[in-house]
Order: sequence, then structure tokens, then C-alpha cells
Amino acid sequence: MLNVSVVGATGYAGEELISILLAHPQVRITDISAKIAKPQKISAIFPKFKGRIELVCKEPDIKEIAAKSDLVFLALPHTVSMDIVPALLKSGKRVIDLSADYRIKNASVYEKFYAKKHSDAVNLKDSVYGLPELYRVKIKDAKLIANPGCYPTVSILSVAPLLALGMVDADSVIVNACSGVTGAGRKIAESFLFSEINEDFRAYKVNNHQHAPEINQELSKLAGKKTEIIFVPHLLPLNRGILATVYLKRNGQSKESGGKLTELYKKFYKKEPFVRIREEGDLPRLKDVVGSNFCDIGISDCGENIIIIAAIDNLLKGASGQAVQNMNIMCGFPEGTSLT
Amino acid sequence: MLNVSVVGATGYAGEELISILLAHPQVRITDISAKIAKPQKISAIFPKFKGRIELVCKEPDIKEIAAKSDLVFLALPHTVSMDIVPALLKSGKRVIDLSADYRIKNASVYEKFYAKKHSDAVNLKDSVYGLPELYRVKIKDAKLIANPGCYPTVSILSVAPLLALGMVDADSVIVNACSGVTGAGRKIAESFLFSEINEDFRAYKVNNHQHAPEINQELSKLAGKKTEIIFVPHLLPLNRGILATVYLKRNGQSKESGGKLTELYKKFYKKEPFVRIREEGDLPRLKDVVGSNFCDIGISDCGENIIIIAAIDNLLKGASGQAVQNMNIMCGFPEGTSLT
Amino acid sequence: MLNVSVVGATGYAGEELISILLAHPQVRITDISAKIAKPQKISAIFPKFKGRIELVCKEPDIKEIAAKSDLVFLALPHTVSMDIVPALLKSGKRVIDLSADYRIKNASVYEKFYAKKHSDAVNLKDSVYGLPELYRVKIKDAKLIANPGCYPTVSILSVAPLLALGMVDADSVIVNACSGVTGAGRKIAESFLFSEINEDFRAYKVNNHQHAPEINQELSKLAGKKTEIIFVPHLLPLNRGILATVYLKRNGQSKESGGKLTELYKKFYKKEPFVRIREEGDLPRLKDVVGSNFCDIGISDCGENIIIIAAIDNLLKGASGQAVQNMNIMCGFPEGTSLT
Amino acid sequence: MLNVSVVGATGYAGEELISILLAHPQVRITDISAKIAKPQKISAIFPKFKGRIELVCKEPDIKEIAAKSDLVFLALPHTVSMDIVPALLKSGKRVIDLSADYRIKNASVYEKFYAKKHSDAVNLKDSVYGLPELYRVKIKDAKLIANPGCYPTVSILSVAPLLALGMVDADSVIVNACSGVTGAGRKIAESFLFSEINEDFRAYKVNNHQHAPEINQELSKLAGKKTEIIFVPHLLPLNRGILATVYLKRNGQSKESGGKLTELYKKFYKKEPFVRIREEGDLPRLKDVVGSNFCDIGISDCGENIIIIAAIDNLLKGASGQAVQNMNIMCGFPEGTSLT
Repeated sequence: MLNVSVVGATGYAGEELISILLAHPQVRITDISAKIAKPQKISAIFPKFKGRIELVCKEPDIKEIAAKSDLVFLALPHTVSMDIVPALLKSGKRVIDLSADYRIKNASVYEKFYAKKHSDAVNLKDSVYGLPELYRVKIKDAKLIANPGCYPTVSILSVAPLLALGMVDADSVIVNACSGVTGAGRKIAESFLFSEINEDFRAYKVNNHQHAPEINQELSKLAGKKTEIIFVPHLLPLNRGILATVYLKRNGQSKESGGKLTELYKKFYKKEPFVRIREEGDLPRLKDVVGSNFCDIGISDCGENIIIIAAIDNLLKGASGQAVQNMNIMCGFPEGTSLT
Repeated sequence: MLNVSVVGATGYAGEELISILLAHPQVRITDISAKIAKPQKISAIFPKFKGRIELVCKEPDIKEIAAKSDLVFLALPHTVSMDIVPALLKSGKRVIDLSADYRIKNASVYEKFYAKKHSDAVNLKDSVYGLPELYRVKIKDAKLIANPGCYPTVSILSVAPLLALGMVDADSVIVNACSGVTGAGRKIAESFLFSEINEDFRAYKVNNHQHAPEINQELSKLAGKKTEIIFVPHLLPLNRGILATVYLKRNGQSKESGGKLTELYKKFYKKEPFVRIREEGDLPRLKDVVGSNFCDIGISDCGENIIIIAAIDNLLKGASGQAVQNMNIMCGFPEGTSLT
Repeated sequence: MLNVSVVGATGYAGEELISILLAHPQVRITDISAKIAKPQKISAIFPKFKGRIELVCKEPDIKEIAAKSDLVFLALPHTVSMDIVPALLKSGKRVIDLSADYRIKNASVYEKFYAKKHSDAVNLKDSVYGLPELYRVKIKDAKLIANPGCYPTVSILSVAPLLALGMVDADSVIVNACSGVTGAGRKIAESFLFSEINEDFRAYKVNNHQHAPEINQELSKLAGKKTEIIFVPHLLPLNRGILATVYLKRNGQSKESGGKLTELYKKFYKKEPFVRIREEGDLPRLKDVVGSNFCDIGISDCGENIIIIAAIDNLLKGASGQAVQNMNIMCGFPEGTSLT
Repeated sequence: MLNVSVVGATGYAGEELISILLAHPQVRITDISAKIAKPQKISAIFPKFKGRIELVCKEPDIKEIAAKSDLVFLALPHTVSMDIVPALLKSGKRVIDLSADYRIKNASVYEKFYAKKHSDAVNLKDSVYGLPELYRVKIKDAKLIANPGCYPTVSILSVAPLLALGMVDADSVIVNACSGVTGAGRKIAESFLFSEINEDFRAYKVNNHQHAPEINQELSKLAGKKTEIIFVPHLLPLNRGILATVYLKRNGQSKESGGKLTELYKKFYKKEPFVRIREEGDLPRLKDVVGSNFCDIGISDCGENIIIIAAIDNLLKGASGQAVQNMNIMCGFPEGTSLT
């Protein structure tokens, strides 16, 4: 049995992590913590856990967490993880960090988008970007996983084959992404009140979202050259799920029909347990993936343009599901344990 | 033209008041105020008003408001209105208060439910409960209207005929009421975040809601004896509307069939422009009233029991619509002006 | 491995059954059928099953189903199951019927509410009402389970202790129940279109719902006398979950405080894995149970009245989850397998 | 008083037309018709109209409609209007057709997308595309208005200034549009059931929607050359509103900053009562326009790219509101009557 801790248990990602880990046959949750006024049973905070787990959620005590765990999940707000990670790694624990703190290798880009100086350059350098479809081998031995953001997960997976194969103009990528409200975390602000969002729909941070540099970093590697996408996120009046509609322009070489494109995607992802490519003309929708760790991808051949529709559950493949997928890889468990 | 001010313009009721008043041909809005960090155009706060009103919303200045207005709407949180009302009345202005401060005639009951000492016993005594269906004559000449709560409006209207006619056991009244989220106001709290309410439904303040004494006060008058109802409110995952399902037991005298009951309701409300009685077997639902100032009522004859279904828009007949209905009555305008 | 079939796989209950059974380690799904224009992979009908199950859904062939299965789930519309059950039982298969066809022991009552003559009196007599909390011993050896309705499950569980202990006036029970839209099945009718239900809320079949006789049958047994409740269902604008608000009047003997009532409930259900009693003053809401097989119950002491709030997921404890719970009991599997 | 009829009164657009026309001081509704099993009061079909209108809705009788009306609104499904229009025009009535039948001047394009031969070439030629911002002068004297589609209205208004001024590559236009469910009409199909749409989001008819040729026709005129956009519609889980996110590439000439672009938009639309241009950096969202006839537009300067966010209420500016705006122009009423 692997002993794991969840730090940041009261957010949506933390709550989801507990749900998945409770059903994992090779894992025992040994510590649950969060920024919290006074210690409280996690089942009092989330009554759905009543009768399923008795642990008390309290302020994180790093020494205690290190003593009780083999692996630690950090589901903390951005800019907070980097204060905790060094001590955990030093004590020999493996860490899966769901925040953005170790995703962007260029610290100055991180600092621009997250408005805080990066305090842990050493571990930033060694962190592994936890997208199994691209980095499975490195994940296996990683000490510190930078679990990808929700928008980046779906954006990168949706275009990786086209960029890797050099079939599209890398500078033409437009990602129009729409996310459910849990994507923003359990943030207490007027703009996230029910009546502000229900029956509403809006774009935000147009071409200025903090996930854009994370996407650009990975797409640049895939394309083999510096790539900057257009990224426009939108807020959907629903709880869970991200649907990305991606517009790309073919470059001169690419003439493949839609059926052929679909084949290329299937081949690219043929060993991936959590990427499903739709048949030509078939498009994923949120309900196909919400509640699962799958990323579903559909390809539309539009002449000079290619349009990709891709969908994930932002709390699963976009956060906690992918974190557990990474844990499974790191620990040699079957990759889909507790995820299917 | 009547000059009116709206104090508390940034809440849902205030926003709705402005919408209605902008369409009122005999009214000019002359001052808009609210608790606000710095003055801002109301159309910057609510972009839907862009191009329709140019006023700046700022902290309320009672002298300025009095100088600029013939009549003042107070859409303030409970316990705040009573600090402002005395000065406004003293300056000769008529006031329609949408808070609970002047609704409950027994100050000690008010103090128990609103947790604050009542500071204005004099005006409390003279305030008129602004339910036109019961108090139209008094409203006409009132200086201070205590605009009814949303739950009380629908609860009282739904059972008034049966209690007034003595047909049911007054102690048997059970009001099971379900409200949209705007009923709670624009309150910034975790429990009102989108993902906490969407796809959820819950009861709250079971038999302990602050609107129960307001309902009891009015039903006691109608029944001619002290009456205490069972009142259980619930929170619906939608923006607007209250549906009340009311259970009553007939007393010995009542044997009327459903059709006859419907006739009695129609007769009781026959001159009311905003109460609609459904034919026997026909029940109102929220969409029949949302966006309008109507209260729709349907009656089900269940043998010894009578079940009433009644619906209103909590922001219109349950708040701002009724406030304007009261203004129309007070000022001699056609009662439905800007409301139909 | 137990071989099971799902008949009626394209409805919400059938879809949910497949989800649960796919995760069940001792079960193999061997046949999937439904009323369907032409055979189609179930993963084409529900893309969420892509990569998880390859079976084709076709019109039910009873002989084939019997040949391939040890146990058959019928997730069919009411009045259809009774045409199929006799042949399945005759071939020695055990059947769990999610329709109403075998729930109401009095065929004439069934016929009144379901508008069809009952054609299988023999098996109706021997069917076992599949509510484990009341009939676990009988379920163990049953050939035919009449899986309870969603409203009846939550209604019966919510008041069983009070009726069994004789603490309330059995004729005073009022069940005000609110259900998500999947409760109505995947019915193609104007009244179930998105824009007809979204932002709306309504009562329907006031004191005339087909689940009332089912509830009355079981409450009468518990109370030891003929009992008729008042039952008013409502339609919530959300996908899953039922919350029942139940009003009861104490009879002369009962003076127990809320804390004592809570203790009595805990004692009554102390061995039940899927009933959770809340501490005094704590009330369940839909999100506590949606996605799980739990029934959560909270008790409010209101003097002469007792108010119970109870919640289930209508597709799990109210249908497919309970069906699998029954299967687990029948087959000697741990009762919570694939349900926690 | 202008006598008007509404044909197709039971759809969402028809229902909305009645609401607007009831509040119009210079209009009297004289006939209401629709495909309907048997004649019924419109207030029985839509209880929200109880007490507000007494007309009976019945199958359309063209002679009777012509006899009773000065102007006729057709809110019929596509391919049906063209069977009725010739007779109405022949009898001298003015017609505002909300269907697509008279929007696309090239009948063969119409026939391809609407799968029916166009039967009224004569009136198709003379019909006026009812977008007041482009065709106000022609609308004034038109006999037959082809009221624009909802997606085309928001798409055309959002890019008209850039195309008219030649500032962008006309072939680069990508319209990613998201619509509420009423946009599809009151269509009874499984895919429009509440539980199929709630908590879901999907793209559909990717680059193959019937509104694309309508948009292309108008953009080609504005650009002065044949223009084909990429158009991807999506279905939002909400009742009303369309938000379009439009991506354009500047052509060589254009270097204007965001502030300058905003100025150009303001100038282009400066006399338009129902187009509101946001200040630089400010973006419209659905709630700013739902319930109103406004089209709100925000411009984002993204270097070589320009991103426009535009929003309308699909039933108002996207259908019935614009139809009444056209009527007001045709009849010389103030353009905003009953729309503000």
C-alpha cells in the first residue's frame, strides 16, 4: 500500500483527488490538509464522504506529512506550492503538484503571468511536465511532477500530432476553449456567484490567459520552433468539462483528407489509454468525457483549414485524474487504476 | 414627472427597480446610490444599462437624495434601512422600503430574527405593509411602505381567501417554498458560488426562517387568531422565481369542491390586476410568472386537504415590481404602469 | 463471473446500469438490448463507453438473453416488463425488474395507475420488493426482484423508523418531493425539452402520482394499518437527484427531542451500508448523494411536527444502484461492490 | 393603430413577438395562428399571457389574415413561408418573414442548404434583407422583409466595419459562435431534451451550417469580393443569447491600435440605436444583452490579429426584436418603440 497525502483538500481538485484515491486499491490516504480556520473532519466539509473516510483536515504540517506519506499531492493555489515543495523533496518524498508553479521552465515567463518571483529554480529545472502522452518515460522516475493545467492538457493533446508531423502552420493555431466553472477553483468572488454565471456566457482574458505560455512552451517543442497561439478562454454555465475548438491552417505539404487525418491521430495515440480519436465526422461533446479521465478528439477537414474539437473533464484529465494517472505511472501500478 | 431615487442600486432588487423605472413614463430617476468603493456610472456596473441611463452610483447622501426626490426606494440590506428612514420621512419624502425593517410590527420579534435592536419604533408603528391586495386603501396615503418579503407575498396571497373565509384549520398551514437564487441577494459567500448551487437543491432554515413571523403576522390578522405556520424554504438552481406548495386541512365547515374553491378565490381577487387564479386542475409553474408582476394560484381539492400551488417572480411581485405597484397606487398612476 | 444482460439499455437507468456493471469485478455483461431501429454498438449510442465495451445493442431476443445470462436486468418502460418476465423466469434466470410492473401487489391498483391489465398474476405474487433495508432476507433468495421506484425509495426510507415505532400519526404523512429530470426517463416530449425545464420549476400529478400507491403499500405494512399519504412531486431543473421534504405529526405518545429522534434513526438503520443519518440540525442536500448509492436523512424536531429531509440519486439508490445492490445480495457478493 | 397578425405563434419567436407586440402602443394583434391540432386560446398555450390577450390560436387562414391585418409576421419553419408569402403580398399586405426563405438571393444556394426547391423567385428577388444597420432605407419601403437569422445578425454586425473599411483579410474570418437552446426553435427531438443538453456543450454542423451562406452573402457585399468564412456554431446549456468570438487577420494596410479600432466601430455605428460598442478592453457577455434588442461589440487588438466579441439575444435582435424594429421602420414609428 502506498501512503499518500493531499494538501489543499478543500478545493475542487483536492475533493476530486480524495474521491479517486478512496477507490484506489493500492493507496491509503494518510493525511489531509488545507488552509482552514480550525481542524474539521473532511466528511464534515464534504458530507458526501460521510462513512467513507474519517480523517481530519487541518493546516498542513510538512514534517508530519513527510513522515506519514510516500507521495504527496499538492492541490494548492498557484504561487503557494513552491514554498512547500523543496522541503518535501528534501525529505525524499515524491510530489505531484497540481499548481502551475513547476510547469513553465522559463521563470521570467512564470513571474510575468503569476505575478510572483519564482523561489525554487533548482526544482523547477528538474520537474517533469506530467502529460503522460508526451513524457511517460520521464514521469516514471520523476521526483516532482508539474501536473499540467486543464486548458493546456486539452489544447496540447488536440494539436500535438499535427504539429509533430509538421502538417500545419504552427503560427496559425487558434484555440477557442470553453470551460465549466470548477476550472476556476472554489474562488469566493462576486463574478462566480450562481446568478452571475447561470444563463450567462462570456470570454475572458482574451489572448492573455496564464495558460497560454504553458501551451506555447509545449507546442514549441512539438513544432521544433517558437510557437505562439491565439488562446481565448470562455466560461460555461456548467460545473465540469472543457471543450476546445481549435482552428489550424495546413501548410504547403499537407493535403491529407479527413479520413487520413483521423488515421494519423489514431496512430499517434495508439498506445494511449486515455485518448480516444473519433471516426471522421464524429465530434466529441462534454458529456462523452465528464466523469472520466478521457480526452476525446474529433477532426474536421475544412479544405485549407483543419478544425479539431477536443473535450476533457477539467477536474479529471485536466487535474486530479491526470495526477493519479501520473502516480500510477510513477509507482508501477496499472495506469488506469481507479480511473476507469 | 415624479422624481425618484434608488438607494441600494447594486443589489438584484435595486437593479430590477432601475429597469422598471426606466420604462415608466411618469417617473424620472434622479439619484442612484449604494455602498460602493468609488463612484461609478451605473451603466459601468450593469452594462445592460449602457445607452439607457447616465447617472453615477455613489454612496448615499441623504440630504442630496431628499433634495432631488419626491419618493425614495430603499433596496438595502435588512437592519440598514431604519438608519435612513427617519431623516427621509422628516424631510417630507415618501419612502418605499424593500427591506424587512418596517414589516414586523412587534419589534421584539423583529429583533429576534434580524439580530439587531429596532431603532425607529415611531415609524414602525405607522408603516403600511405594502401588499396591495390587502392594504390598497392604506397604501394610497402612506408615507412609509414596508414592501413585503418575497416568500411572504406568495405565501399570504396563496392562502388569504381560505383563512379569511374560515375554511381551513389555521394551525394546519404548511408552506413548502422553493426560491431561485436571486432571492438571497447578491451575497458573496461560498454557499452561493455557481458550482455549489448548480445541480444541487436543498432545504434551509427549516421552520426557522425570518420570513415566517412576517407571514404569521398577516395570516393571524386574516384568520382572526394567532396563527403559526410550518415554513420550509428551499434553494432552487435557477435565477428567478418562487413556487410555494401549500398544504392545508379543511375545518369542519368546509366541504366545497375544487371548482367551488376556485370560484371563491376568483371572487376574493376579482379586482386584483396582478393575481390570476387558475381553472380547476390547472397549476402555475415558474415560467408563467417569471418576468412579470403576477402571482398565479392553482387550487387542488384533495378531500380533507387542500393543496395550493402559487408562483411569483421574487424580484418583481416579490420585491421591485410590487414596490413600483405601491408607488403607482401612492401617486395615483394606473396601478399597472410599467408592470405589464 | 456472473453473466448478466441489460434489457432496455438506451434509457437513463440502462445507461447507468452498464456504467456500474462495467466496474464490477465479478460481473460480465453478455447481452445488451433495447427497442432500437437497427443494431448499433452501445458505444456508438453512448460515446462515453468508447473503448470500454464493444457489445452491440439490438432488439431483445429472450431466448438468446436467457442462453447467455445468469441474471437479467430489465430497465424497460412500465407495462412492458410483464411481457418478458414469465419466459425469463421459466428458463431459470433470475430477474431484477426496474419497472413498476411487479411492485404493487394489488393488481387492480396497478391497473388503475398504469392503465393496463396486469398479465402475470403468478409472478406478481412471488416477486420481492427490492428495498434491502426492509427485505434483505427475502431478496437473497428471490427469483424476481421488483426494484423500487425512485420516489418510493426515498419516501419509505425517510419515514420507516417513525411509522415502525408508532411515533407519528400515520395519516398525517405529507411527502413533498422534488426530482431531477432523468427521473422521467429519456422521454421525447415537448414538456421535457431543455428550454421548457431550464429556469422553470413545477409541481405535477398533485396527489395523483403512480408512485403514491407503491409508497402507501409499504407504509401501511410498516404502520400496521392502511395508510394514505399526501404526495406532491415536483420537477427540478437539474439532471439527477431527489430531495424529499416530509412533514409528519407526532401522535400522543411521542415526545422525543430531535437528538433522541436522530438516535432512533441511527439505531433503526445501524447495519445499513447505504443509509446515512445526519446529526441533529444537519440536513442533506442533493450534492451529498448524487453520484452515490446513499440515502441521506436529516431530522428536524418542530414541536408537534417532525420534518424529515432525505436525498438520493434517483438513478443510483433510486434505480440502477439499488438494482446492483440487490444483485450483490442475491449473489452473495459484498453488498457495496461497484457501488462505493 | 396598425393591425398585425402572427403566423407561427407557438414557436419561441412567435411567443416573443406576441410579448413585444402586446406592449406596443401603436399596434393591435388581430390574428394569431400556427400549426395546431385544435384551436386554443393563446393564453392556454402560454399561461403567461393569461389576462393579457384573449385571441384564439388556430390554423392559419390566409384570406382571413389578409382581411384582418395591415402587416403580417411569419414565424414559420424554413421552407414553409414561401408557400404563404405570395398570396399575402398579392393581397397588398406587408410581410416580415422570420424564416430563411427570402434571405439568400441565390436560390440554388438556398436549395442546397434547406433541401427544398425555392418556389417564389419573383418575391425572392424583391425581398429586403432586414438588417437595419445596413439596409434601413430599403426597409422603409419594403413589401417583404427577410428578417435575418440569429447567427448572421451577430456575425455580420461584428465584422461589418472591418470589412467595409478593408482593414482585414476577408478570407481570414473565423466565427466561433455559441447559442442558447431557443435558437433551435421548439423542436421535439431527443437531442434537445433537458438532460441531453444540461451540463453539456458541443459544436455542431462544423463549417456546414445553413447560416454560413447567409453570412457570406452579406460579408461579400461589404468586402466587395466573394468571401467565405469559417463558421462553427456551438450549443450552450442556457435558454437565450448568442456570443460570437470572431478571429480576423489584419491585412497589410491596417496598423490601428485597439483604441483606434474602437473609435472606428463607434463611428461606423454612431447612429444605430441598437448597436453598442464597448470601450477598449471591455467585453460584452450574454447577460448584458439578454432581454434586450441590443447587439454589444467589444474589440481586442492582438497584434496581427483582431478578436471581436459580440453578443445578442437570439430571440430579440436575433429574431423577434429585430422584426419589430423593422416594422417600426416600415411604419414610421420611433425605431425603438416597445424595444427599450
